[in-house]
Amino acid sequence: MESIRILFLGDIVGEPGRKAVIEHLPLLRKELNLDFIIVNGENAAGGRGITPRIAIDLLRAGAAVITTGDHVWDQAEIVDYFPTEPRLLRPINYPADTPGQGSVVLDTPKGRVGVIQAQGRSFMNPPLENPFLLAEAEADRLRAEGVQVIFVDFHAETTSEKIAMCRALDGKVSAVVGTHTHVQTADERILAGGTGALTDAGMCGPEESVLGRAPESVIWRFRTGMPTRFPIASGPVRLCGALVDVDPATGSCREISRFNRLLIAEEPVEHS
Amino acid sequence: MESIRILFLGDIVGEPGRKAVIEHLPLLRKELNLDFIIVNGENAAGGRGITPRIAIDLLRAGAAVITTGDHVWDQAEIVDYFPTEPRLLRPINYPADTPGQGSVVLDTPKGRVGVIQAQGRSFMNPPLENPFLLAEAEADRLRAEGVQVIFVDFHAETTSEKIAMCRALDGKVSAVVGTHTHVQTADERILAGGTGALTDAGMCGPEESVLGRAPESVIWRFRTGMPTRFPIASGPVRLCGALVDVDPATGSCREISRFNRLLIAEEPVEHS
Amino acid sequence: MESIRILFLGDIVGEPGRKAVIEHLPLLRKELNLDFIIVNGENAAGGRGITPRIAIDLLRAGAAVITTGDHVWDQAEIVDYFPTEPRLLRPINYPADTPGQGSVVLDTPKGRVGVIQAQGRSFMNPPLENPFLLAEAEADRLRAEGVQVIFVDFHAETTSEKIAMCRALDGKVSAVVGTHTHVQTADERILAGGTGALTDAGMCGPEESVLGRAPESVIWRFRTGMPTRFPIASGPVRLCGALVDVDPATGSCREISRFNRLLIAEEPVEHS
Amino acid sequence: MESIRILFLGDIVGEPGRKAVIEHLPLLRKELNLDFIIVNGENAAGGRGITPRIAIDLLRAGAAVITTGDHVWDQAEIVDYFPTEPRLLRPINYPADTPGQGSVVLDTPKGRVGVIQAQGRSFMNPPLENPFLLAEAEADRLRAEGVQVIFVDFHAETTSEKIAMCRALDGKVSAVVGTHTHVQTADERILAGGTGALTDAGMCGPEESVLGRAPESVIWRFRTGMPTRFPIASGPVRLCGALVDVDPATGSCREISRFNRLLIAEEPVEHS
Ligand SMILES: [Fe+2]
Ligand SMILES: [Fe+2]
Ligand SMILES: [Fe+2]
Ligand SMILES: [Fe+2]
Ligand SMILES: [Fe+2]
Ligand SMILES: [Fe+2]
Ligand SMILES: [Fe+2]
Ligand SMILES: [Fe+2]
Repeated sequence: MESIRILFLGDIVGEPGRKAVIEHLPLLRKELNLDFIIVNGENAAGGRGITPRIAIDLLRAGAAVITTGDHVWDQAEIVDYFPTEPRLLRPINYPADTPGQGSVVLDTPKGRVGVIQAQGRSFMNPPLENPFLLAEAEADRLRAEGVQVIFVDFHAETTSEKIAMCRALDGKVSAVVGTHTHVQTADERILAGGTGALTDAGMCGPEESVLGRAPESVIWRFRTGMPTRFPIASGPVRLCGALVDVDPATGSCREISRFNRLLIAEEPVEHS
Repeated sequence: MESIRILFLGDIVGEPGRKAVIEHLPLLRKELNLDFIIVNGENAAGGRGITPRIAIDLLRAGAAVITTGDHVWDQAEIVDYFPTEPRLLRPINYPADTPGQGSVVLDTPKGRVGVIQAQGRSFMNPPLENPFLLAEAEADRLRAEGVQVIFVDFHAETTSEKIAMCRALDGKVSAVVGTHTHVQTADERILAGGTGALTDAGMCGPEESVLGRAPESVIWRFRTGMPTRFPIASGPVRLCGALVDVDPATGSCREISRFNRLLIAEEPVEHS
Repeated sequence: MESIRILFLGDIVGEPGRKAVIEHLPLLRKELNLDFIIVNGENAAGGRGITPRIAIDLLRAGAAVITTGDHVWDQAEIVDYFPTEPRLLRPINYPADTPGQGSVVLDTPKGRVGVIQAQGRSFMNPPLENPFLLAEAEADRLRAEGVQVIFVDFHAETTSEKIAMCRALDGKVSAVVGTHTHVQTADERILAGGTGALTDAGMCGPEESVLGRAPESVIWRFRTGMPTRFPIASGPVRLCGALVDVDPATGSCREISRFNRLLIAEEPVEHS
Repeated sequence: MESIRILFLGDIVGEPGRKAVIEHLPLLRKELNLDFIIVNGENAAGGRGITPRIAIDLLRAGAAVITTGDHVWDQAEIVDYFPTEPRLLRPINYPADTPGQGSVVLDTPKGRVGVIQAQGRSFMNPPLENPFLLAEAEADRLRAEGVQVIFVDFHAETTSEKIAMCRALDGKVSAVVGTHTHVQTADERILAGGTGALTDAGMCGPEESVLGRAPESVIWRFRTGMPTRFPIASGPVRLCGALVDVDPATGSCREISRFNRLLIAEEPVEHS
């Protein structure tokens, strides 16, 4: 009983995050026997967006698809890169003629794999079109085209919108994993319709941080209400995400587990 | 080396949640060898607030302290109950002459235990006073009075505000656990200063739900933008929270772990 | 040089507001030599939504079209009424199969008049589809069908979104008038493309109030952060809106002025 | 019956706004027979904050006091300037040890004049302390010290919070005028307790703009959801504000009127 084994890594933050991901992806592919790797790169460039150079590095390291989120356009040069690279996604619920695409289908030795990204609207900017209607329609379209294995990255703030999306897509896709909060949730499960679900994948970034940023700066902001810089933190990196096994024949999720690994500074980081 | 063992349960939702909690608390006290139980009751009354009756039931079942949150005033009768029950807390960052208190200190056989509740301000209503300044000051005040063991429930939406609070209070309190999102996070840890931290405890409520509500109603709302009722879901209940071991001499956290248990529907009493 | 003379009245609040409007509309029609009357009824039913009965009363009193806003669905019975009454509008940027319509075209002795309503997305709930793309497309569609005179009610919170909409539609419609803040702005003007613009029409409701509500209740809420009822205020009513003269041949705005009249209790209110 | 005649000018936007204000203040002082001039400078530096240089220029041109708002800290150099210049205000509802002050009292030939600035919390960032409690306490404090003439700039987004503040301070201060939306409202009036009130003063900036910014850029943002620069617009400038006459003996407002003047581009000096 063959499975397609997918690793999804949540928001990669800054140089520490992306160096760790680029270094470890080839090792993880072997160790975890992965068929397909998806990473969220919306914070890969200094915490703000992604550059073409970084996208290329992530793809070369083994990512099959890069998703993004509300920080997608932070680096101006990425806008023109989008039409050239279908494996880089932006949320599907932008208006029709926005650069880039919100979904992609790729061939693998075990069959086609579709990836969809949508962005939530509760406490999120900019306001976008209805992600429920668009993600459901896109999932239906891919299934109608014979794509059984479909992974959805839903980039959203509130747990209500994210869990509702998991359940709205239950039976229509293989897995829905949330991103954006940078904190992994402990609610991984397979829903009644066969869709794997995890409210948030967590981030790939410095462990001693607030969402990847130096803690003192963020605390100072909350205490004073005054502006400050939020430098990317340093030190050991934690990789967070989800590991999903999918039945390629039906697209159903066989297993979903949290991926959560602290890279000890002395050891794995020596390579980086 | 004696420990104070604290169980904290996150937002109790509706009748299913509170029935399960009331029934299981006495059993959990024995099974987990608990010294002190704190529960968040802000959604105990049909998902909206808490009544005096429910507060009494939770206290009788073994809760030493009940925290709340943004839903604290949803049931009008609770306002006058607050001054009569110091073990029921509302966020400390309300204006000075608000009914009720945001902290309490109780005697236990192993020494005094302080509990503080604060509410966040990012995407939260109503706007309240600065929770960082007030929670830090209250922690300092309790420590100055000789209270070493201090537990903080920080009721907030965003992971950034919650993690920043954990770190702002690191070394000042025994543990900081977040509530409000109703989804447990997987980031429990002991910070450098000895404070246990968990971004969100998760809820105590129906498993097949969106934050305790019937999924179809919430999905319909997101699809249509139109109003609807959000009935409390039914079926098996999951209890979520945090288990914290504290050194009573120093107030440092010795261990923090997620508490997360699905109660099987058929025999909730026997098995749990 | 014939003109079509349109009176638009902003958010009608509660019984005081709707009684005053119903009583004065026939008088205003004569006094101001009106050809077409549009009223925003989103707060006509006790401040929350509108009922079929109230809609009928407003239409009988002389309103040709009733617009609404974020409170459109507050009265549950209005949902089924929408398909029966094309002169009652809800924001055009709801999903495709939502009850009701976001625009209407009516015949008048001086030619057809189109009315469009859209709702903003900055600080507005629920999140809706892009109002700029949809309002512009609808204006283009109506003009393509030969409808020259087009009035737009843009129900939105922020001045930036509202002024941007006025300018986005400049040259495409006869006038854009904002609603929702309940306070009339003093920036009426005709833009370069011939479109009349006013950021907010203001409300029709009790003068001694906060957006139509009793001031003490609202102040108490801001001081305490605690919930309370917000009763509709009493006393003299002010009618606020915009008076627009349109060239029926071109659809261009010839004149736009604020309509703003305090109804003295002794006099006009005696009839009410 | 002597009056103190106060001119308040709303948010000065960018170079066009501040050049116009600096040039016209001396003329307006004579023409309008002004005793005291207050200007809001939060957008004076390219739309974002204010520099010491600009503050000095505005004070030299005749402003007695400069208020700010949510953009107060946008220019980093202003932080250290605050303690040196008591006539520059930041919102009073920052935490206690924030640089600068939220109120000032100045001597004039007609007696002392107090100015208070507070910032709202509905849809405003950063979250601050309760502006109602703090502004009321400060007004009481000034009156207790014998300062009768008190002007309040309430920098806030929503009409509900602004009107509630006007009414909460009615009888405690001479006038409350709102800022932040950049659009003047048409609801100037004297409340029952003798306080002049205007929900928003409007801005001093380019007429053909969206809140001072080039319209095309803002419209593009709303249409696409994609980031862009928002350059300050050019062309004729409109000065908006409020003109307030106060009885210096009682502090009551005798008259409040909108100040609203479009400066013709070719000869701004002569014609204005
Ligand atoms: Fe992110
Ligand atoms: Fe994000
Ligand atoms: Fe909550
Ligand atoms: Fe809750
Ligand atoms: Fe509204
Ligand atoms: Fe309204
Ligand atoms: Fe401003
Ligand atoms: Fe502002």
